[in-house]
Amino acid sequence: MGKTEYRAKARDLRQALFAAQSDLLEERVSGVILVAGVDAAGKGATANQLNAWMDPRWITTRAFDGPTDEERERPRWWRYWRALPPFGSLGIFLSAWYSEPLQERVNGGNRAAFDAEMDEIRRFEQTLVDGGVAILKIWLHLDRDAQEERFRRLEADPLQRWRVTKADWANWRRYKRFAEATEEILDATDVPEAPWIVVDGSDERRRALDVGNAVLSGLRARIHGAGAPSPTSPIETPVVGGEDSTVIGLDDASVALVKRRYRSDLAVLQARLSRLHRRARESQTSLVGVFEGRDAAGKGGAIRRAVEALDPRRVDVIRVSAPTEEELAHHYLWRFWRRIPRDGYVALFDRSWYGRVLVERVEGLASPDEWSRAYDEIREFERQLVEHRIVLVKIWLDVSAEEQERRFEERFRVAHKRWKLTDEDLRNRSRWHEYDTALTDLLRETDVAPAPWRVVAADDKRRARLEVLRHFCEALEQHLEGVETPSTAELPHG
Amino acid sequence: MGKTEYRAKARDLRQALFAAQSDLLEERVSGVILVAGVDAAGKGATANQLNAWMDPRWITTRAFDGPTDEERERPRWWRYWRALPPFGSLGIFLSAWYSEPLQERVNGGNRAAFDAEMDEIRRFEQTLVDGGVAILKIWLHLDRDAQEERFRRLEADPLQRWRVTKADWANWRRYKRFAEATEEILDATDVPEAPWIVVDGSDERRRALDVGNAVLSGLRARIHGAGAPSPTSPIETPVVGGEDSTVIGLDDASVALVKRRYRSDLAVLQARLSRLHRRARESQTSLVGVFEGRDAAGKGGAIRRAVEALDPRRVDVIRVSAPTEEELAHHYLWRFWRRIPRDGYVALFDRSWYGRVLVERVEGLASPDEWSRAYDEIREFERQLVEHRIVLVKIWLDVSAEEQERRFEERFRVAHKRWKLTDEDLRNRSRWHEYDTALTDLLRETDVAPAPWRVVAADDKRRARLEVLRHFCEALEQHLEGVETPSTAELPHG
Repeated sequence: MGKTEYRAKARDLRQALFAAQSDLLEERVSGVILVAGVDAAGKGATANQLNAWMDPRWITTRAFDGPTDEERERPRWWRYWRALPPFGSLGIFLSAWYSEPLQERVNGGNRAAFDAEMDEIRRFEQTLVDGGVAILKIWLHLDRDAQEERFRRLEADPLQRWRVTKADWANWRRYKRFAEATEEILDATDVPEAPWIVVDGSDERRRALDVGNAVLSGLRARIHGAGAPSPTSPIETPVVGGEDSTVIGLDDASVALVKRRYRSDLAVLQARLSRLHRRARESQTSLVGVFEGRDAAGKGGAIRRAVEALDPRRVDVIRVSAPTEEELAHHYLWRFWRRIPRDGYVALFDRSWYGRVLVERVEGLASPDEWSRAYDEIREFERQLVEHRIVLVKIWLDVSAEEQERRFEERFRVAHKRWKLTDEDLRNRSRWHEYDTALTDLLRETDVAPAPWRVVAADDKRRARLEVLRHFCEALEQHLEGVETPSTAELPHG
Repeated sequence: MGKTEYRAKARDLRQALFAAQSDLLEERVSGVILVAGVDAAGKGATANQLNAWMDPRWITTRAFDGPTDEERERPRWWRYWRALPPFGSLGIFLSAWYSEPLQERVNGGNRAAFDAEMDEIRRFEQTLVDGGVAILKIWLHLDRDAQEERFRRLEADPLQRWRVTKADWANWRRYKRFAEATEEILDATDVPEAPWIVVDGSDERRRALDVGNAVLSGLRARIHGAGAPSPTSPIETPVVGGEDSTVIGLDDASVALVKRRYRSDLAVLQARLSRLHRRARESQTSLVGVFEGRDAAGKGGAIRRAVEALDPRRVDVIRVSAPTEEELAHHYLWRFWRRIPRDGYVALFDRSWYGRVLVERVEGLASPDEWSRAYDEIREFERQLVEHRIVLVKIWLDVSAEEQERRFEERFRVAHKRWKLTDEDLRNRSRWHEYDTALTDLLRETDVAPAPWRVVAADDKRRARLEVLRHFCEALEQHLEGVETPSTAELPHG
């Protein structure tokens, strides 16, 4: 498939997927997209793709590597129950409950145990489906020759070589056995409520579109009921790709140049971030990103560009909005503490604990006493994160009043149905100056070592995104150099 | 102190503590009771006492032994934040964040690090206090001779001998150093917002009363504000001790006999359960208890008698009422899955997943489709628990319509203020027969291996409590014998 054709198709598909995501929320349905398949067929790439093609704030991706001790000490399904996304969200689960039975079957486990296992999986999936979870299962296929070629290509690349292990080759030599076991498993668990979709992984563009289509039709079937017609015009989401913000005062050729330049800069920075992210993982370094800024400052778009460069199995994007009942029954920092990532993982906060001294202050949701002591509390909280050698990057996306207005108008015009301007946005806007004061105080009080703010001019979306990526890269570089010197060994409580 | 004097004082104190607990809920305050002190001064016994003296459904007790891997991979305060009780509840934390600094100080850690640590603790506690958490810190003291005597006494008892380790004696020999370090720590962290209360541990009755009084006045100060007069008549809680249910048609002497007999039977059964619980812990066996029954069937009282026999650091009592927002956004089983205990721990559910086929069915909160498929789902869920070698005991407390009415009247009469009869109770009562049908179906569908129901006649509270304890003992005995035969090694997914 040609690049141009792919691009056009992908663009339409992404818009439709975005729309399906917002339908999920309205319908109180959640989805589990289980991605399994032959080694090197592109499971990780598929997880990346889905995170990049949809809104990652409503997606969690889980790899289910070796269980933690808290998981090991509970019934085996506990870790999957625990990872289930709430209504409105998607969970992308890699291999998950299929990896063990496949291994066991290949290694000649006995038939009765296998059948019992298949039975148990069917019951588990049925239980979820009955309870309002859409389950889509994608099997990525490669034939034996294609797999060999993929391995050889990876080995030829010095940066990718580590991906191919001896075990991979050993499995490849037993390809036939794996294929047979796979067929048995797929046959046994391919039920109408939770069907398998087999996608050929040999052509990457084809695979991406096939996966996108499979997810889209799976979600639509669940949302609109089997057989119901799909909505006539799902394509009304303006944010996809994010390349649509106008570049004022330039002729077409210049616009094209600016866009091309942006794309190439973006690719370079994402590759750099991706490399650093891998090194951070290896040294068990976590990253916490805080995105703050007024409405329409471009937080979501910036987060998406960062997520594209990261391993989605290691990233958690946390949308902070009104606290839940359970969160309200605790100290206000509790909800943030509980989302702090494990070593080697990443959490990106779309709004954060700074809400206490911004929206809660301005709207009178926190008392003067509460918000004024929050500066101290926040400094202490952040100090504790940094002390645990978490790389903490705080981004303030700074949008002007004029540009914000322009974006609100654009939102209103282009997509009033799905992403409509809320009353809250308008109210916030009327309090622009009060927010200004809150922001000044915030910077004075919390723009301090060891967790300074990075203020990014956000009127130009593209430049802002690049700037954000650059800040992430620099923070990681600085830290990783630090980690490699012995001096940090003296840090307390490391 | 004489036994009679102690009993009278303890009784009043317990009633006042109960009342303070319900005030907590009204005031949206939570409490952390930190219990630290000299080895063998009674930290564990104090945790037991507080669980027995108050309503354990609003208490969680945590020992903070070695961190789990999920805890180790996060900033050090994460595990404490995670364990914080929600408003209305109490957390009893044993030693918690004081055990490391004490060890380090005794082992000659440097002064600057120690001061920084004390500083950090003060800030952490201040943050909690500011956010609405009452912090009471109890230091249990024993002098050197008393500690030695306590160790010797434990060593003389074959059942207790294992409690005294070589490390304990080594620490005892360094008693002076521990005492000095303790003094430093207490001085550094004794602040008005989170004061230390030093309680002498040498006389057990004295200690119990001192601890009870300290907790009571600490909670009252937090609830009513410092210096405010304590409520004039907190003693209106009828359930304390639970010995107050009338024994109809007997003369005084017979009543006294019945009560004495009950107390001795209770003690014997609790001792048996306690021993079995220890063996279960050693073999990493968990216990899940389900308590169901109509309103006023005596679930709370039965749970309390079981908790008294168990190690509160290992027990979680879960009150199941209307689901929270977060729980509503998931499959209905999710809220129960997430409370499944780790190996070696205990969870007692005061109402449970059976709500789906009882209250939700009768009140029309679940559709016929939903509740009728729940039998299957529940059987499968329970099978998975048992497969993980969890001992699952399901108790149905069976109260007659007449006795329920009597208890409602009693509640109404004695304690209409705090534990008042809710509208819901009355509504449920008007649907007695619908509940009957639901119960019949429930037993037909879910009284099956491997998790049968144990129906306990509950009109006589005392007999019911003994019966419940007996069921727990028998289930554990059966299981532990099973564990010791090699056949269980063949269980799948063990």
